Amino acid sequence: MSRTAAPLNERDLAFALYEVLEAEDLARYPRFREHGRETFDAALATAAKLAQEKFAPHNRKADLNEPKLVDGRVEIIPEVKQALDAFAEAGFFAAHADFERGGMQLPWTVAQACYAWFQAANIGTFAYGFLTVAAANLLDVFASDDQKRRFLQPMLEGRFFGTMALSEPQAGSSLGDIRTLAEEDGAGGWLLKGSKMWISGGEHPLSETIVHLMLARIRGAAPGVKGLSLFIVPNHLLDEAGRPGARNGVTLAGLNHKMGYRGTTNTVLDIGGDRPCRAELLGEPGKGLAYMFHMMNEARTIVGMSAAMLAYAGYRQSLAYAAERRQGRPAGAKNPDAPPARLIEHADVRRMLLLQKSVAEGGLLLALYAARLVDVKNEDPDPAAREEAHLLLEILTPIVKAYLSERSLEANDAAIQIHGGYGYTRDFPVEQYWRDNRLNPIHEGTNGIQAMDLAGRKIAMADGAALDILSRRIAETAEAAAGDADLAADGAALSAALDRLRRTAARLIEIGRTDGPEAQLANASDFMEMAGHVVLAWISLKAALAANRALTAGATGDEADFYRGKLASRRYVFATDLPKIAALADRIEAGDRTALETQEAWF
Amino acid sequence: MSRTAAPLNERDLAFALYEVLEAEDLARYPRFREHGRETFDAALATAAKLAQEKFAPHNRKADLNEPKLVDGRVEIIPEVKQALDAFAEAGFFAAHADFERGGMQLPWTVAQACYAWFQAANIGTFAYGFLTVAAANLLDVFASDDQKRRFLQPMLEGRFFGTMALSEPQAGSSLGDIRTLAEEDGAGGWLLKGSKMWISGGEHPLSETIVHLMLARIRGAAPGVKGLSLFIVPNHLLDEAGRPGARNGVTLAGLNHKMGYRGTTNTVLDIGGDRPCRAELLGEPGKGLAYMFHMMNEARTIVGMSAAMLAYAGYRQSLAYAAERRQGRPAGAKNPDAPPARLIEHADVRRMLLLQKSVAEGGLLLALYAARLVDVKNEDPDPAAREEAHLLLEILTPIVKAYLSERSLEANDAAIQIHGGYGYTRDFPVEQYWRDNRLNPIHEGTNGIQAMDLAGRKIAMADGAALDILSRRIAETAEAAAGDADLAADGAALSAALDRLRRTAARLIEIGRTDGPEAQLANASDFMEMAGHVVLAWISLKAALAANRALTAGATGDEADFYRGKLASRRYVFATDLPKIAALADRIEAGDRTALETQEAWF
Repeated sequence: MSRTAAPLNERDLAFALYEVLEAEDLARYPRFREHGRETFDAALATAAKLAQEKFAPHNRKADLNEPKLVDGRVEIIPEVKQALDAFAEAGFFAAHADFERGGMQLPWTVAQACYAWFQAANIGTFAYGFLTVAAANLLDVFASDDQKRRFLQPMLEGRFFGTMALSEPQAGSSLGDIRTLAEEDGAGGWLLKGSKMWISGGEHPLSETIVHLMLARIRGAAPGVKGLSLFIVPNHLLDEAGRPGARNGVTLAGLNHKMGYRGTTNTVLDIGGDRPCRAELLGEPGKGLAYMFHMMNEARTIVGMSAAMLAYAGYRQSLAYAAERRQGRPAGAKNPDAPPARLIEHADVRRMLLLQKSVAEGGLLLALYAARLVDVKNEDPDPAAREEAHLLLEILTPIVKAYLSERSLEANDAAIQIHGGYGYTRDFPVEQYWRDNRLNPIHEGTNGIQAMDLAGRKIAMADGAALDILSRRIAETAEAAAGDADLAADGAALSAALDRLRRTAARLIEIGRTDGPEAQLANASDFMEMAGHVVLAWISLKAALAANRALTAGATGDEADFYRGKLASRRYVFATDLPKIAALADRIEAGDRTALETQEAWF
Repeated sequence: MSRTAAPLNERDLAFALYEVLEAEDLARYPRFREHGRETFDAALATAAKLAQEKFAPHNRKADLNEPKLVDGRVEIIPEVKQALDAFAEAGFFAAHADFERGGMQLPWTVAQACYAWFQAANIGTFAYGFLTVAAANLLDVFASDDQKRRFLQPMLEGRFFGTMALSEPQAGSSLGDIRTLAEEDGAGGWLLKGSKMWISGGEHPLSETIVHLMLARIRGAAPGVKGLSLFIVPNHLLDEAGRPGARNGVTLAGLNHKMGYRGTTNTVLDIGGDRPCRAELLGEPGKGLAYMFHMMNEARTIVGMSAAMLAYAGYRQSLAYAAERRQGRPAGAKNPDAPPARLIEHADVRRMLLLQKSVAEGGLLLALYAARLVDVKNEDPDPAAREEAHLLLEILTPIVKAYLSERSLEANDAAIQIHGGYGYTRDFPVEQYWRDNRLNPIHEGTNGIQAMDLAGRKIAMADGAALDILSRRIAETAEAAAGDADLAADGAALSAALDRLRRTAARLIEIGRTDGPEAQLANASDFMEMAGHVVLAWISLKAALAANRALTAGATGDEADFYRGKLASRRYVFATDLPKIAALADRIEAGDRTALETQEAWF
């Protein structure tokens, strides 16, 4: 039993890492040879402590006191900087960075497991860290040595923070319409002019300066995404010694006022309006979007993890509440003099807890599974293994982002419902989790975009190889379950669901061929839901197999209860979510044209 | 085409009232004989104007400036009182009250249609009106003539407001645990002592006084709900002339701070702590809950309507936005120099509009259908017709409340998603609709309670007569569709769905008999979802039949487009929602025991 409202269950994190994902095995890669369970656990323990002591306590305060503009400067409650300073001090900006840059050189999997603590504790404050780490990763791959020295290094130390500066007022989902213009300044640098919108962490007093990775179009470049280049744009110009000096021409034009994620500034930026905006080209011209997608893909799996961690925090909170709060009596109990039951004694409340548990714990495992693919893709000595991990990550990324963000909102909704009226008040944290989580289906590519990516591109990519690899992994789990008497029926159900998913995917591609891309994509969101249910069932069954192995090996007491919880989650997913795919598949395979054929004038 | 962001489409309201529900026919009842379409339309026009001019403009302001406590008094932005004064002035507190009490004596159906405007425009301000009307209705049925004169009359005039004072800190869903104690004061009156929680409109400066209808337990009465009596508790004692004088012992102990519905005060009240709390018994002792349920049932259908009207407002807003905002290009469009498409040109956006349209317009029609049953139940000269309306209303009430509140949240979620990042900001109204709407699954009996009411009581009530009547109405619509070439397939689908619903209901009752009430209710929420899908499909098909009749009769231009929209909504519901019932029915009929058997220690 784990009844505290700690936002994450460390037993579960250890289960995911060591009992399902064999994280220790990553130490066989040369890069991680100095690591092992001991160093992993030390990092996790530090993250757990820091998240609970420095991040969680001001989660509500930051929501109630959003960043505000005072005399042209952004003011943020002091706890945010204190938390991020401690995050830097503990080395988490450089959790997976090279030893030689002062990093911990942890596997990406373990770094993500550490970050899970911060996401569950305080997503708004952690976002500054996440944006900086994502920007640093991009610099690490594409920047010149000189740029790395001047920009990457201070970011790894937490002295400079980073952003992704893509969107513009007229170009949110549609990056091809970006208008910010770049021209050479005649001295080897560039001058940018335009306007940026929705830039998270775009202005704040938390770091020495902010390093924007900004998409712009070089004058005369092609229209659309092919004409975009990526620039490094610091908020302050650096002197010879790399110290931030005078302001660069990136001017705060306004703060956006959001429903949630309020601790994170979200900004409208004027580029080169008041004063010249100096920039450095990153890599080659015209490759901006390709570079950015390196960051974006990472960001998408992290969004999925963030969503699941908000679900996790809500689950833990509502579980603790349900175990304490007395209300009503079980159906059929007739004696009004008997003391009221605790909420958890009501079957409908347990249903809402199971929903949350399966999404939160399944989401954590799935997001860590994706993180592990990053390690394999980057470090495995076998090129075939690297390619396989790459393709699998490609097809899983939109699912991790979109499916987990949808389902995690549903989980947070259940957390509120368990609390009744109290859940609707700002005295309990669950309403904030729900509001914070509502961003996740929107940012880093809306879920509609993710669905089109999956149904229009990923299922067919590399001649279907990505889907084949995913199918093989799912089939392996289904086969393993066939050998486990308790889980054989679920193995068969998963196997049938996989067949159906493949059939539906093939049909979608056929529809695209015969009726064009609009027809292929008209029901993309349904296909996303279908694929997500299959993937969650697969992940739940993987966890259940590990749990049943441990039970068979003789786990007892709290340990046995923990493992039985994994079996219960899996049972819930197979009883509740997986059966939904039939109706979805029927409609997709029939090429339902309702949305396509409904004319504008009819609304 | 209706592209303005007026929160409600008056053409649609007229369609629901006159083309589907035959509201004019209500004038054949003696009570409404002075009415007809002309007076109905006049009332609707007044409501539309008032809602848009006096309620809508401060909807956001009231959200941003919630009621606050200043020197022990509640302060509310002045626009709220101005709006409610205008509401009173126009006679809407007495929309359906007797002529002799100064009322308009409108059918309940038409009164609800008027209220729909206010719900869509500003739910937080309207709530004061709704609570007062609901309380007045209860007094109208159960109060003595003297009580009616002193309390009901000023409520109908909008001088006194009302509340439902049921919940207590330890008794939210579980009214049987109410502890507020009543004792005779020796002078024919009563003294109350206790504490009340979640009382909406429990304190405010908007009316001369507040009339609480309060549940309490007379000393020595039975435990549980049988021992509850209902009392009239004014905030101020009335003098001989009925004028509010000294404060009664109902003291504001605190304001609850909610995520939404912020315009409506929600209070913790101390009863009889500081000073004596004088009360009058309403009706007979021990009948409190039965009386309250008169109000509660009405409140439940109004909650369903409120939810649907928030969905409606979000639909209209996101429709207007999608018709203007340009972003991206349709799938397959390759030329990046072409101007971006409007959002509504994307199939996935039309999908999200169809979802909203079917829930908002279907919800409006369903809630008005329920309101019409109230008129038949109260006014039809034929006792059999009255009884039939009563039973049908009994089984529809939990569905209207729970299903519409669930689905309307989903609709508001889609409204946000269509807006992208803008929808997540407080610069657009859709995020507020979503937050406001989140209350609806909680109050007036949580959706879990509604599901248990439906699956545990209503399907079996009067030997299954309520379900039989609902089935007959659904079958009539299915049969009518069989005669319409365009709709015959949907008629057959509805007919099959109805068969399945009845089979599942029978199985539930059987499970209750063999395995007990907990087993019967363990999957009640799934049964609610299933029943809701069937009912929405039925209502959508009813609307489609009316629309197709009009098209066949030669409607052209905008009118034809309007009707085609009804056909499109119906197509969406039959393609998307109705097919979900198979998986639900399978699980319910199998008596799935996942939630029942998951032990507390496993979480």
